[in-house]
Amino acid sequence: MSKEKKLRIIPLGGLGEVGKNMMAYEYQDDILVVDAGLMFPENDMLGIDYIIPDFEYLHDKSHRVRGIVITHGHEDHIGAIHHVLERVPAPVYASPLTRGLIEVKLARRGMANKVELNTLRAGETVQIGPFKVETFHVCHSIPDGFGLGITTPAGFVVHTGDFKLDHTPVDGWPTDYAKLAEFSQRGVDILLADSTNAERPGWTPSERVIGPALDRVFEAAPGRIIIATFASLISRMQQVADAAIKHKRKLAFVGTSMVDNAKIARKMGYLQVPDETLVSIEEALNLPDSQVVLMCTGSQGEPSSIIGRLSTGTNRQFDLKAGDTVILSSHPIPGNEEGVSKTINRMLRRGANVIYDAIAPVHVSGHASQEEQKLLLNLVRPKYFIPIHGELRQLTRHAALAREVGIPAENILVIENGQVVELVDGKPRLAERIPGGYVFVEGQSIGEVDDDVMREREKLARSGIFLINLSLDKYSGRLLDEPEIITRGFISPDDAEALIPQVQKRVMEIVNGGGLSQEKVLEDTVRTLLYNETKRRPMVFVTMTKV
Amino acid sequence: MSKEKKLRIIPLGGLGEVGKNMMAYEYQDDILVVDAGLMFPENDMLGIDYIIPDFEYLHDKSHRVRGIVITHGHEDHIGAIHHVLERVPAPVYASPLTRGLIEVKLARRGMANKVELNTLRAGETVQIGPFKVETFHVCHSIPDGFGLGITTPAGFVVHTGDFKLDHTPVDGWPTDYAKLAEFSQRGVDILLADSTNAERPGWTPSERVIGPALDRVFEAAPGRIIIATFASLISRMQQVADAAIKHKRKLAFVGTSMVDNAKIARKMGYLQVPDETLVSIEEALNLPDSQVVLMCTGSQGEPSSIIGRLSTGTNRQFDLKAGDTVILSSHPIPGNEEGVSKTINRMLRRGANVIYDAIAPVHVSGHASQEEQKLLLNLVRPKYFIPIHGELRQLTRHAALAREVGIPAENILVIENGQVVELVDGKPRLAERIPGGYVFVEGQSIGEVDDDVMREREKLARSGIFLINLSLDKYSGRLLDEPEIITRGFISPDDAEALIPQVQKRVMEIVNGGGLSQEKVLEDTVRTLLYNETKRRPMVFVTMTKV
Repeated sequence: MSKEKKLRIIPLGGLGEVGKNMMAYEYQDDILVVDAGLMFPENDMLGIDYIIPDFEYLHDKSHRVRGIVITHGHEDHIGAIHHVLERVPAPVYASPLTRGLIEVKLARRGMANKVELNTLRAGETVQIGPFKVETFHVCHSIPDGFGLGITTPAGFVVHTGDFKLDHTPVDGWPTDYAKLAEFSQRGVDILLADSTNAERPGWTPSERVIGPALDRVFEAAPGRIIIATFASLISRMQQVADAAIKHKRKLAFVGTSMVDNAKIARKMGYLQVPDETLVSIEEALNLPDSQVVLMCTGSQGEPSSIIGRLSTGTNRQFDLKAGDTVILSSHPIPGNEEGVSKTINRMLRRGANVIYDAIAPVHVSGHASQEEQKLLLNLVRPKYFIPIHGELRQLTRHAALAREVGIPAENILVIENGQVVELVDGKPRLAERIPGGYVFVEGQSIGEVDDDVMREREKLARSGIFLINLSLDKYSGRLLDEPEIITRGFISPDDAEALIPQVQKRVMEIVNGGGLSQEKVLEDTVRTLLYNETKRRPMVFVTMTKV
Repeated sequence: MSKEKKLRIIPLGGLGEVGKNMMAYEYQDDILVVDAGLMFPENDMLGIDYIIPDFEYLHDKSHRVRGIVITHGHEDHIGAIHHVLERVPAPVYASPLTRGLIEVKLARRGMANKVELNTLRAGETVQIGPFKVETFHVCHSIPDGFGLGITTPAGFVVHTGDFKLDHTPVDGWPTDYAKLAEFSQRGVDILLADSTNAERPGWTPSERVIGPALDRVFEAAPGRIIIATFASLISRMQQVADAAIKHKRKLAFVGTSMVDNAKIARKMGYLQVPDETLVSIEEALNLPDSQVVLMCTGSQGEPSSIIGRLSTGTNRQFDLKAGDTVILSSHPIPGNEEGVSKTINRMLRRGANVIYDAIAPVHVSGHASQEEQKLLLNLVRPKYFIPIHGELRQLTRHAALAREVGIPAENILVIENGQVVELVDGKPRLAERIPGGYVFVEGQSIGEVDDDVMREREKLARSGIFLINLSLDKYSGRLLDEPEIITRGFISPDDAEALIPQVQKRVMEIVNGGGLSQEKVLEDTVRTLLYNETKRRPMVFVTMTKV
């Protein structure tokens, strides 16, 4: 019996939430993985460092994974690569720059020599098991990204990765329309396309608009210019370097990831900065302020980043001062708006002039807006469409756009992580659901922190804790000593001084009076007492020693 | 010796942060208070119910407060009125609708008869001590709001309150340009104006655009329409009622605040809904879906609101179902973006069609954008300008706009809460700083939860707690029993099973080996052990009983 010609599309990340992209394509015994991204924690994910895709599905199939193709070098596409490679040691395929950024990442973890890395240039084709992978260049906010045409015996799939249709990209390399048109002529069974900006009407401005905006800011800046963005925005680095050269300033990259990425991008020819323009941060700090540009991370207001520390006056190497111009060259990631806003306010309070995207076009999105998404759909003319890379709200909007350009509603599949789709005889159908949730990474541990732990943290955070330790006489059940009480995050020391003796008294009355010896019962009683006194509900713990 | 002619402008809220507006004007022995708003907690204010202005400055001067004028009925202007009145029992002046909304609020707290409430209509003048207060109507997203012209012996101040320059407001009552022009002719010493949208170019769309947008949504909706907004958006209620009438649907207000506010607004003639259109929620649920509109709160994704509960399937009275159309008629308040987004995703997952401002103009801002702010500045032509109502970033932008229209930079004062300004001989100068921070309200208590408590909560939330209770022999210092261990929010039960015996063993070794009897020392040791094993840092507490 011959096996069915069936392609399984297995979304492990990036569908129904934004930020951690990972997709598996499975044909019979072979699996191709596309991307392995991470996502930064949301506000209610207390204590979490970051989140990686749940790729449990691959755990027992790692020997069947023929390759991992990475579309571009952003964290939400490469950030989990070391976690994935530890479990799934398959060869990795990436463009030169993407490969360079992966090498930096792996080297930091001592994994550089344990991994098979292959260079796959945009426009090239590689056969990975039964998957013929043809790459096509796409514009995005990092150079050297590509999308994929994947030919399998069960059908032809186009997977865009992140893209925009920038006609005047900074590196002069537009999205490969010809290849997409050629795919279209061949007949595309399913298109999977980036939905990030599906709620944004119009066309995303070209990266090129940032140049003149930077120009104006550089012209007006009396002192130092400090510009913050993501360490992976190589084209932004180029634009800042160009402005620095034009305005006769020296440029210093600050922070490990910024320095490392700039180094690799320069080495590989993706970033053109003459040696005489580049200085170290130490040199920069000794130059006159009007001759300095510092480029660093922290555009999302992360408290531990350089911008975060400058805003609170806790940076080690240098401080913010009046006359500084700070440029936040990025847009807040959903959930970071409040943090970014606070950071802006704090820097203004320190006398800096702060420029951000509401004031000048110092940032543009790297993702296609509605008109570009419609053009892509019309260029590729797929039979079926699966929106990827977005929360459900963006996926839903992208589906609506696809209907507008004439793809029948029944040919559009809005699915979330873990919902497997099977393409059989060129027709897709929903298959089983596999785990597709969050895997939390915190400290050393991966996935040990679960939703229950998170809920407990939330409870602890809401009203704090109240601990009571009792020593009882095991015969009489009476207290041998005053109850010991520890409280954190509940009330101020002043209030505690009034409340604690009251609780001690009440506990003594109860225990000595009726011989209450059950921790749980006593906890309930104290909980009620505290609620009546304060209308708050701290977590109450009673420990007892009977002697 | 005659007293100096000095007006003190004392910002207690609303400058340098958004959401809790309160200003005091002090002339010699008399004080006038304008607004008494609250603010909802930000993401990092764990466990807090809401925040009120720090009006400690007034505590010992309450007998000198001649009146409290409320500009309009939104929570960020009236929400703290009961807290303020408890300390400062001065007469309150407000427009009919604002007064009605204040009455509802006070009645709920049994304070209705303890307060002197005065009706002050837009366009009227009232003398409050040495302050001649002339009100002028302003458009905003609630009817019957006004701004103030305040004549004092030390100068003439114009205080806008929240405003927009809507030429086609729903209630047909535009902002009172004539009065502003007249003020201008008289000569305005200081203008204090709403900065909320100072980062927004152009002109805020008229409330009127919402009508056609609702019309289109109503036309297409196959089943129930559930529309969420703030309970104080009376003009939105009017527009929904109009759409309901037009499309032959019955309207039910859902939730106490919605029902109460609609009732008072109808009674006072600010909301026109025929009796036959209005039904109770019980009646609505018995009608065919296509004949129903439900209007409720929860547009900010608050988990305990009706929309919040519908999104998680935990609403008591009715559930969301496929075919429902949900309209979020509001824009996320800064900090709520992530929560709103989650709520949208959850409702989509339940099969509802969700309409929000990125999809259709079902909401417009109630605040003036840049062109309106510039027009106001040019209409009023003040000598000096203080931007109010905004975070420092918006105040700074508003100041930049004022410079653009020709107000000299040195005549613009960007100040934050607590920075007193004195107007002497028509010239302002910075005076002392008074407390101007957050006052947290949580449960019964006001201001007892301070930053230290908040920091402890953050710590608890980050990695949980680890409690160890020991019973020791007081002579030998040896353990009488195995250490008792309780942990929350730290690790999953599975991991705890492996880790806890390890910790117990180590604690026993230490205590029994060296006679370690100091809680702090043992806590440090356990903290290190836990960090080495998990790379996490829970709060560790050791309690000891020596017997």
